[in-house]
Amino acid sequence: MKTAVIDDVIAHLSRLPGIGERSATRLAFHLLRAKPQFREGFAKSLLRLQEIVLCSECRTVTEQSPCRICTSPIRNHSTLCVVEKPSDIYSIERLGNFKGIYFVLHGLLSPMEGVNPEDLALSKLVEILKKNSTQEVILALNPTVEGDATSHYLARIFNELQVPEVSRLASGLPTGSELEYADQITLGKAFEGRTRLR
Amino acid sequence: MKTAVIDDVIAHLSRLPGIGERSATRLAFHLLRAKPQFREGFAKSLLRLQEIVLCSECRTVTEQSPCRICTSPIRNHSTLCVVEKPSDIYSIERLGNFKGIYFVLHGLLSPMEGVNPEDLALSKLVEILKKNSTQEVILALNPTVEGDATSHYLARIFNELQVPEVSRLASGLPTGSELEYADQITLGKAFEGRTRLR
Repeated sequence: MKTAVIDDVIAHLSRLPGIGERSATRLAFHLLRAKPQFREGFAKSLLRLQEIVLCSECRTVTEQSPCRICTSPIRNHSTLCVVEKPSDIYSIERLGNFKGIYFVLHGLLSPMEGVNPEDLALSKLVEILKKNSTQEVILALNPTVEGDATSHYLARIFNELQVPEVSRLASGLPTGSELEYADQITLGKAFEGRTRLR
Repeated sequence: MKTAVIDDVIAHLSRLPGIGERSATRLAFHLLRAKPQFREGFAKSLLRLQEIVLCSECRTVTEQSPCRICTSPIRNHSTLCVVEKPSDIYSIERLGNFKGIYFVLHGLLSPMEGVNPEDLALSKLVEILKKNSTQEVILALNPTVEGDATSHYLARIFNELQVPEVSRLASGLPTGSELEYADQITLGKAFEGRTRLR
């Protein structure tokens, strides 16, 4: 009882990451039962992604460039958080306690995959640091080999530019996890980065 | 760095079953990176779900009524498989070995939820059985309380109509599972429905 229309929806859904053919089928039938207004709104939202551009300052995705954070008068422009991807900004903004601005690398250094410093728009990053006389940089890159390499490379640049504070997000045991199940590297990092209790 | 456009996509995705806000965010950024043609195709497929109607015969979802299976000259119209939902037909068709036709109940009997026999379009089912002088009915309903109740209710009707063969999908241990981890009811059903080895 295949219909070309439902199959077309399933084909699109199953090309999304983490959605197999069975999930796609389930979702397609859900969409079929949904209100027409919902499907129309969904379709329209997809088409409007076309309007998204990169911010000329921080290089995140935005409807208007420069973006809302880069132009916000209430954000602290001398504190810069460096992230790999625009979606990382979403994760940090959801926390709601970072009040500085961002810079998106759109990648991490990876000699294996041919990603070299010149691929990361570092001249724009340096330009922003100078313009804002940045006082603090927070490197919010993944705790992976590539994230480590990129953090160390950037830290050297920030030191040369005499940025007063440069830090990186803590690596260690995730909250709620059990030590017994932690892998050796995570546990090692948790030891290295142990914090003093007073 | 929220943008109204991306948020709108996330809002729609996160209303789909099994997709939380974090998955929705990940999918939205994937869609943002996808080719515009993909998004346009996806949006169009969603809008075309509007064209789907119920088959006047088997009551499945279809672009043209009666549907392709009900009008197929190569299907065996005297063998009828009764399912709960149109998507169940997808699952069975994927197997590729059932050559009969279907009937969709669009629900199962559930006195608790107020679903009674008159809600299941049984007069249409009886009409089809008579028209095709159905020789065999396969009840492909979930092995749940509601599926059991509905199967028993329907089996009585089929007996009254003197359908020669009425069967139900086997209940038992799923292939690849371990007996040790089976719940009591499943194991009990597997015992009851044991098949003779020759």
